Amino acid sequence: MTVKNEQLLIIGGSDAGISAAIQAKESEPTLQVKIILADEYPNLSICGFPYAASREVPDWHSLSHRGLKELEALGIEFDLNTLVSSIDAENHLVSGVRSNGAVTYKYNKLIVATGAIPKVDAFQGFSFNDTQENNSKIHVLHTMSDYLSLDTALNQAKNTAIIGAGYIGVEMAEAMVRRKLNVTLYQRSNEILSTVENEFGSMAHQELTQNRVTVLTDRTILSVVSSATSVKIKSTDLGNITDDRSFDTVLIVTGVQPNTQLLEAAGAKTGVAGAISVDEFMHTTLPDIWAAGDLVETDHRLLGKTYLPLGTTAHKQGRIAGLNVVGQRCRFRGIVGTQVIRAFNLVIARTGLLPKEAENAGFSTLSSTSTVFDHNSYFPNASKITIKLTADKESRLLLGAQLIGNYGSEIAKRNDIFATAIFNKMTINDLDDLDLSYSPPIASPWDPVQQAAQDWEAVFDKSK
Amino acid sequence: MTVKNEQLLIIGGSDAGISAAIQAKESEPTLQVKIILADEYPNLSICGFPYAASREVPDWHSLSHRGLKELEALGIEFDLNTLVSSIDAENHLVSGVRSNGAVTYKYNKLIVATGAIPKVDAFQGFSFNDTQENNSKIHVLHTMSDYLSLDTALNQAKNTAIIGAGYIGVEMAEAMVRRKLNVTLYQRSNEILSTVENEFGSMAHQELTQNRVTVLTDRTILSVVSSATSVKIKSTDLGNITDDRSFDTVLIVTGVQPNTQLLEAAGAKTGVAGAISVDEFMHTTLPDIWAAGDLVETDHRLLGKTYLPLGTTAHKQGRIAGLNVVGQRCRFRGIVGTQVIRAFNLVIARTGLLPKEAENAGFSTLSSTSTVFDHNSYFPNASKITIKLTADKESRLLLGAQLIGNYGSEIAKRNDIFATAIFNKMTINDLDDLDLSYSPPIASPWDPVQQAAQDWEAVFDKSK
Repeated sequence: MTVKNEQLLIIGGSDAGISAAIQAKESEPTLQVKIILADEYPNLSICGFPYAASREVPDWHSLSHRGLKELEALGIEFDLNTLVSSIDAENHLVSGVRSNGAVTYKYNKLIVATGAIPKVDAFQGFSFNDTQENNSKIHVLHTMSDYLSLDTALNQAKNTAIIGAGYIGVEMAEAMVRRKLNVTLYQRSNEILSTVENEFGSMAHQELTQNRVTVLTDRTILSVVSSATSVKIKSTDLGNITDDRSFDTVLIVTGVQPNTQLLEAAGAKTGVAGAISVDEFMHTTLPDIWAAGDLVETDHRLLGKTYLPLGTTAHKQGRIAGLNVVGQRCRFRGIVGTQVIRAFNLVIARTGLLPKEAENAGFSTLSSTSTVFDHNSYFPNASKITIKLTADKESRLLLGAQLIGNYGSEIAKRNDIFATAIFNKMTINDLDDLDLSYSPPIASPWDPVQQAAQDWEAVFDKSK
Repeated sequence: MTVKNEQLLIIGGSDAGISAAIQAKESEPTLQVKIILADEYPNLSICGFPYAASREVPDWHSLSHRGLKELEALGIEFDLNTLVSSIDAENHLVSGVRSNGAVTYKYNKLIVATGAIPKVDAFQGFSFNDTQENNSKIHVLHTMSDYLSLDTALNQAKNTAIIGAGYIGVEMAEAMVRRKLNVTLYQRSNEILSTVENEFGSMAHQELTQNRVTVLTDRTILSVVSSATSVKIKSTDLGNITDDRSFDTVLIVTGVQPNTQLLEAAGAKTGVAGAISVDEFMHTTLPDIWAAGDLVETDHRLLGKTYLPLGTTAHKQGRIAGLNVVGQRCRFRGIVGTQVIRAFNLVIARTGLLPKEAENAGFSTLSSTSTVFDHNSYFPNASKITIKLTADKESRLLLGAQLIGNYGSEIAKRNDIFATAIFNKMTINDLDDLDLSYSPPIASPWDPVQQAAQDWEAVFDKSK
C-alpha cells in the first residue's frame, strides 16, 4: 500500500476546511496543502440549499463559494470521494477508502474539519439510516447528495412535511411554498425559531401562516412510517389528541451534532455537547492536530465554552487554524451568538444572549422591547422594527439583542451594531454615544438601535 | 417692561434645543422649561427639506419630528416668533423682540442652541441679504421661511441652478429632477461631495449625470446677477474660459457657519472655526450658560476639537446639555465623523477620517479599496459595494471608512459597524474577529465589512 506524504492534510472541504487551507496557503505559499473530501463538492454553501430548493438560485452548482478549479489554482490539492476511516495520531497517519481501494496519508500537520451530522430523533417507525436509502420518502438535508435526493422528491411531491422549525426548517418551508407545494411544519416546542424568544418567533410564525404554511407547534412526533405511496406522521399535541397526516415527502431537520467519530477514536478529548475540545489556537488535545468548524466547541465571549455550529464561526475558526499550523499564534477571540434568518418578507436577527440564556449564565438581567421605525416616519415606506434589548442589571453591560422587521430595513446590519457593541463590552448606555449614520430615507437622528437603548433606559434607568 | 422668570430658558427650537428640553424635563419633571423660537416651527427636520421639495414627503408640515402640541404636552413652554437680541450673562437676562414689543427673560439656567447660518460667498452682483428679500430669485435653504420661498419659486421655474455640491446641494439636485426641472449643479472643487474622496464623489457624480443633472466641477463663480426675468451666473473653469448661463431660480448652498453672534456679544469664548467653546459637559465659558448644536465646537474621538455641524451631533449634544443643567454630570463622548447621503439609487457613507484628514492629524496611514458583493453572489440581486478603509500604519488602528453602493444594500448600517469599531478603538485586524450576521440573502460568511479588512491585510499585512 502506498503512503502519501502530506505537509498539511485537511479532512473536510466545507467552510472550516477550505478557510484553513486558503489561509495556510496565503500565509505560507510554499506549504503543500491537501484536502480530503468525502464527496466531490468542495466549499459548498450548505446555507444555500434552501435557495436552490426555492429556485431563487436557479443552478445548485453555483452554491459553491469557490469552484474546485479556482481552489486548485490557489495551489490547494484535493483527494475527492475519499472517506477517512481512522486517524493514528501517534504515527501521524490517516487511513481512508476510495473507490479503487484503501489509501494512507502520513501528515506533518492535520486539521480535522468534519463538521456536524444531522441529529435525528429515533421516531418510531424509522431511523436515520432509512433517510440514506435510495428513493426514501424521508429526507435529511446536510450533504449535496441529501439535497439532490430531496430536490428530486420535491419535483414529484404535492404535500410535504418538515419536522423541526429551526432556521433550516423555516427556510425550507418558504422554499417549498415557492415551489408551490403544500407545506406542514411540525415543531416540538411551543413556538418556532427557538433561537429567539416567543414574541419574535410568533411574528415569524404569523408570516409563515400568511404564506400558506401549516404550522403545528407543541407537537410530539409519535411515529413516521413510510409506505409505498406516502409517509404517515402520527403526532400528539399538549392535549394528548393524536393526529395522523400523510405526506408525499418528509424532511427532518431537528438539529445537528458534532461529527467527532474520527477524532474521538483517535483519543481526542471532547467537551460541551460532546464537541471536540480545542484551545484558543484551535488545537486539539492530540499532537499536531487542529480542528475547526461544526465539530468543535466554540468560545463565546459572554458564556465561555459552548456549542453553536454556524458557517460564520466555521470560517473564522478555519482561518485561525490555518494561521496556527504555519506557526502564527493567532487566537480565536470568540463569538457573541450572532444569527439571522430571512422568512418571506421578514428578517429575524439576534446577537448575544437571550434573557434566559443570560440568567442561566449567572447574569441578573433587565430587558425591554421597543417598536421603532427604520427611518424617519415622514419619509415614505418607513417600516416598523421590533427590538428587544437585554442588559445586566448591575453593570448595564449589553448582553443581547433580538430584532425583527421587513427585509430591506437594514435589520441584519443593525443587529451587527449590537454585535460589535457586545464584542467590545459596551453598556446599554454607551449605545447613546455611538455616532451612527443618519439621513431621512435611511435612519433617524437617533438610530433605531439607540431608540431601543433609550426605551430601556426610560424603564430601568430613570436616574440617568 | 415685564420680566419673565424662567428656570431653564432655551434659545432655539431645532434639534439641540428640543433634545435639551426633552431630556431636562424627563430627568427633572418639576423643572420649568421654556424655549424661545425665532419662528413658529419647532423641532423641524431641516434634513427633510430636500424630501419635501422632491414631493416624496407630500406635506412639509410632517417634517417636524414632533409637533408643537406634542411638545407642549411634555410640559415644555414655547415663546414663538421671538427674536433674541442680547444675553446679559452677568445678570442672567435675555432680551428679545416680539411683534407686540420687547420682552425680557430672567433665567436660572440658559441653553443656547441657535445653530448655524448659511455661509454665502460674496459673489459679485449680490449678497446674502438679497436672498432674504421677497420674490428674490436667489435662495438659501436654512429656515422654514427659506424653504417655502424656494418651493414657491420652483413651482414657476423650469431651469434651476444650485451652487455648492455638498450634501444639501446633491439632495436638492435630486429633488429638482424629481420635480421635473432642468438642474445645473456648480461645484468649486474638482469633484462633488468633498466629504468623501474623489473616487467616491465621482461615482455619485456619474449617478447625477445619468439622472440628467448637469454637473459643473472646478467652477469659480464670477458673478450672480438677478434681473426681472432670470438670474445670470458667470463662472470660470480651470482653463479660464468664462461661461454665462441663465436660470429661473438659483439656490446657494455653499456651507454654514456657527451662529455665535449672541454668545460672542455676551462674552463667550470661541474656538475652532469660530464656533463656541464648550467643555465636555456642553458648558460655555459663561456662568450658567450651556450651548449645543451647530454653533459649538465638537469633540471628535480621533481629532480632538473640530467643527462639524450635523443633526445627529446636535441631538446628542442637546441631550447632554439637558442632563447637565439638571445636575447630572454626563460627558459628551465625541463623534467619529459618521455621515451618509442618498443620491438617487446610491448611498454614500463615511465614518472616521479621510486619509488626508488623518495625515493632517499626524497619523501615518495605509488605505485600500475593495469592491465586494452585499450578499452571496449566487443569490439574486447581489450588488456591488465599494469600501475604502484607512488604518494607522504602526498601530493598525482603524481610522476611517468610505462606502458606496445601491440603496437597499445596507450601506449605512455597515458604515455604522465601522463607526462602532472606531468608537471602540479597534484595529483593522480586529474586524476579522467580529461575529456578524450572515444568511445568503443578506450577507456573506465574511461580511463585506470584513472582506474589506482582509483585502487591506492582504496588501499591507502579509505577515499576519
